[in-house]
Amino acid sequence: LQREAISHGKRGMTLEEDLNETNQYYLDVGKAVIHKKPTPVQIVNVDYPKRSAAVIKEAYFKQASTTDYNGVYQGFYIDFEAKETRNKQSFPLQNFHDHQLSHMEQVEKHNGIAFVIIRFSLTEEIFLLPYQSLEKYWTRMKQGGRKSMTKEEIQQNGYQISLGIQPRIDYLTIVDHLCK
Amino acid sequence: LQREAISHGKRGMTLEEDLNETNQYYLDVGKAVIHKKPTPVQIVNVDYPKRSAAVIKEAYFKQASTTDYNGVYQGFYIDFEAKETRNKQSFPLQNFHDHQLSHMEQVEKHNGIAFVIIRFSLTEEIFLLPYQSLEKYWTRMKQGGRKSMTKEEIQQNGYQISLGIQPRIDYLTIVDHLCK
Ligand SMILES: [Mg+2]
Ligand SMILES: [Mg+2]
Repeated sequence: LQREAISHGKRGMTLEEDLNETNQYYLDVGKAVIHKKPTPVQIVNVDYPKRSAAVIKEAYFKQASTTDYNGVYQGFYIDFEAKETRNKQSFPLQNFHDHQLSHMEQVEKHNGIAFVIIRFSLTEEIFLLPYQSLEKYWTRMKQGGRKSMTKEEIQQNGYQISLGIQPRIDYLTIVDHLCK
Repeated sequence: LQREAISHGKRGMTLEEDLNETNQYYLDVGKAVIHKKPTPVQIVNVDYPKRSAAVIKEAYFKQASTTDYNGVYQGFYIDFEAKETRNKQSFPLQNFHDHQLSHMEQVEKHNGIAFVIIRFSLTEEIFLLPYQSLEKYWTRMKQGGRKSMTKEEIQQNGYQISLGIQPRIDYLTIVDHLCK
């Protein structure tokens, strides 16, 4: 965490903003109810001024135990993580954490739909990669293989999403395929 | 928010702890994947010391836009809010917020399962009240009626959950009825 988490946060802003706008659009048109979870924070010290709002004076970023987004779409439980890279030809797997992978595995076991949305920032290419494929490359890494997925692997196993205006990242059209 | 939010937080600790333990148990035995969402915080100022973790120096509690808990159980999307009162004979509706009610309404519209778990702290009585019933009393209040639900109304429309050891608050046995 610390520095690294912050710089990830900054780099991630655009993808996160696009997804938040997309989710707001889905909510407004009655298509789905999907929200970003708040950033988990360990609160250590809070000040209570007499006539104004409580001020958190000391707190730390905690590692999330689940994923970024979840919600409901046509009765399906949806759960995903969003990540960006500035790499050109591969996506580093250290962007994910063990507990996120096991969370997604649990979700699938209980008939939810788990995936990641990844963006190659420099080329603005966005992909939805189902959990099963991510898990394949995660296991390859754990067994001593490469620490990333190539863009070609992502293209073969995932679904590209073209940037739109409204919604910006229409990932539910892809989820429609995963539900069936 | 501010003082009020904090005192709610303290009063709420036990119910929240019991529910967190229950959810951990459900996860451990492979019954469901349900988590509490982090407390939403508006971060204003962060310090980045050279060799240690980033410290949040100024932040404020934000009002949550959704509910406390969500997740997946047997393919169903589960979404609920947990609240306590020290009242003896009625449950004050100001414990809930408009946006929480509309969130739960949306969830039900998309075939998720929305409810509240409420506890009368002094008597340790716990009830699961489906969203539809909460909505009925919420509308009564909005139309000028009483600002609370009586315990009798909760007993008639909800399901009592007896405190157990493992899990502490076995609310999924009630959800089984709601699914069918
Ligand atoms: Mg992320
Ligand atoms: Mg609560």
